[in-house]
Amino acid sequence: MTERFAVTYHVRSDAASIEARAQGIAVEQSVEMPLAGVDEPSVLSDIVGRVEQIDDLGDGTFSVRIELALATIGDDPGQFLNMLFGNTSLHHDVILRDAVIPERFRPRIGGTPELRRRLGVERRAFTGSALKPQGLTSARLADLARRFAAGGLDFIKDDHGLADQAYSPFAERVPLIAKAVSGHAVRYIPSLTGDLDQLRARAAIAINCGLDCMMVAPMISGFANILTLTRAFPQVTFFAHPSMGGADRIAPELLIGRLFPALGCGAVIFPTYGGRFGYSQATCRELVANARPALAVPAGGITLNRVPELLDFYGPDTMLLIGGNLLLARDRVTEESAAFANAVARHGTN
Amino acid sequence: MTERFAVTYHVRSDAASIEARAQGIAVEQSVEMPLAGVDEPSVLSDIVGRVEQIDDLGDGTFSVRIELALATIGDDPGQFLNMLFGNTSLHHDVILRDAVIPERFRPRIGGTPELRRRLGVERRAFTGSALKPQGLTSARLADLARRFAAGGLDFIKDDHGLADQAYSPFAERVPLIAKAVSGHAVRYIPSLTGDLDQLRARAAIAINCGLDCMMVAPMISGFANILTLTRAFPQVTFFAHPSMGGADRIAPELLIGRLFPALGCGAVIFPTYGGRFGYSQATCRELVANARPALAVPAGGITLNRVPELLDFYGPDTMLLIGGNLLLARDRVTEESAAFANAVARHGTN
Repeated sequence: MTERFAVTYHVRSDAASIEARAQGIAVEQSVEMPLAGVDEPSVLSDIVGRVEQIDDLGDGTFSVRIELALATIGDDPGQFLNMLFGNTSLHHDVILRDAVIPERFRPRIGGTPELRRRLGVERRAFTGSALKPQGLTSARLADLARRFAAGGLDFIKDDHGLADQAYSPFAERVPLIAKAVSGHAVRYIPSLTGDLDQLRARAAIAINCGLDCMMVAPMISGFANILTLTRAFPQVTFFAHPSMGGADRIAPELLIGRLFPALGCGAVIFPTYGGRFGYSQATCRELVANARPALAVPAGGITLNRVPELLDFYGPDTMLLIGGNLLLARDRVTEESAAFANAVARHGTN
Repeated sequence: MTERFAVTYHVRSDAASIEARAQGIAVEQSVEMPLAGVDEPSVLSDIVGRVEQIDDLGDGTFSVRIELALATIGDDPGQFLNMLFGNTSLHHDVILRDAVIPERFRPRIGGTPELRRRLGVERRAFTGSALKPQGLTSARLADLARRFAAGGLDFIKDDHGLADQAYSPFAERVPLIAKAVSGHAVRYIPSLTGDLDQLRARAAIAINCGLDCMMVAPMISGFANILTLTRAFPQVTFFAHPSMGGADRIAPELLIGRLFPALGCGAVIFPTYGGRFGYSQATCRELVANARPALAVPAGGITLNRVPELLDFYGPDTMLLIGGNLLLARDRVTEESAAFANAVARHGTN
């Protein structure tokens, strides 16, 4: 008997067509050929996807649960994504809604408890900001980091646009910033980009600077490379950035909530409800629940006055990320960062 | 003065909001922060994206042309994708429609002329099929390859679901299949999957088997890794598979037509109009024109009776890929392949 795992798709369809449509997805995401052409009985019984359940969600959308064979995946999370949604992503009318993550893709991640231990922060939520805009020199970014750090933030991350540009090359920027914030309790999170060789080389540079938190973008770097990277550096907490996550073709509850932690990422950055992206409260709630023990990092246009509301919603196992809106304070960035840190600390003791 | 390149987005919006929306995208895809917080004049002038043109397309959609600074990209095609669409992909109402590919991402690809030279096929279109279903042993796949080859096909590719599964591991499957088709004029195209280390190791295995065509899935492996791979193996023609390409969030004319060749891929596989995916004739026409000199490989449910129509539409610089529908012939696969090869050859001489 073959081992299977369940995948849920949401399919726009009329009731008359949904059974054939569901069967079509089950075939597309497994053998990808007409079953009449399959002359091997074990392929039909053990490999072809199996439609297990179809539910009418009532608005012209159906929830379709399909069981795929674990044998089609091997140990490669890229191939996992390929079998979950590869060709079906090319269809307009299907969203990949959920999937059971196979045991082999459940790495032990330290997540929130590990970060609490490292930073000595027992109960309250964490604070973080982002170094930007890109185009500044490494020295200017380091100066900004120092001013954030002086305000008492827990984390300072590279903006996800910072890569290895001529104006702030990684190998120059990261040591400068790490040095600028040394002596503060803050964790600096550099962004790792490039091919797998570059990801590894840059992680090594960051480790040489004493850093133990780094950011990656799994949809750009490729799932297989991220898993290889997180396995190679088990002492590092990797923050997953959702860049290129696409809107809704893969539900963020799954992509950010389940798949990024499955690659070994111990923290997940996501656009919160009420910011400049469109996620709903329900999406954010499910995403965060799925991701645990990975640290939830809501972001995307958060302002200081929303701290109490957001902490009420997300609870303490959260890092609030306020980037651009702290920078609006310009030469009062340190004071604004301190106000942010105080607001979070105060909320924790209410 | 900063060097810029043009990017076109299609944005659903009302007329009153489109200017602010366009400006929002220009900021999101460059400095990603409120401009009032930017205190460096050169960043405002040289780095922030610039809205150049807005056209009302008339159906609640606007075409927005934004010029992004080349300096934000560096030499990394992953970062290119990040700046093209990273965060904006998270918005529901925006499609990445087109982009000028910077000179640094225009590798010299042999494409169709190179494949004509290698195969000694001067004018007619090429024929190809796919080895499937997955779940067969390597020996069974090799036997199928031999039967395709005996029918006179030009190319036989791994199905994109074939990776490194236990039932047909890459290092066993590829040598067996290469051996099974030796003596025929056919080119076998194995599928390379995994992280960058595995991509390179598998390419080396395939080269040791005398193969010079291989398939990759750039949206799964990551753009930076694919460019590194194609640079490392300049003697290989890489066929780009669109798996995880998503429907329409990045226009296929751009993603498959321009971006995949920019990674060094000399052939692009795409779902043709009239198959089981939804691309229009206009999309297919533009995609193919964009991709040249890369070989156009329409696929996705093609049947033998459509050969004349498809060749009339696509012209001879094409490889028609008929996978599952040849396999329906079961023990007459060789004869069906020969009929396919003859139909293409006949069309060329009409």
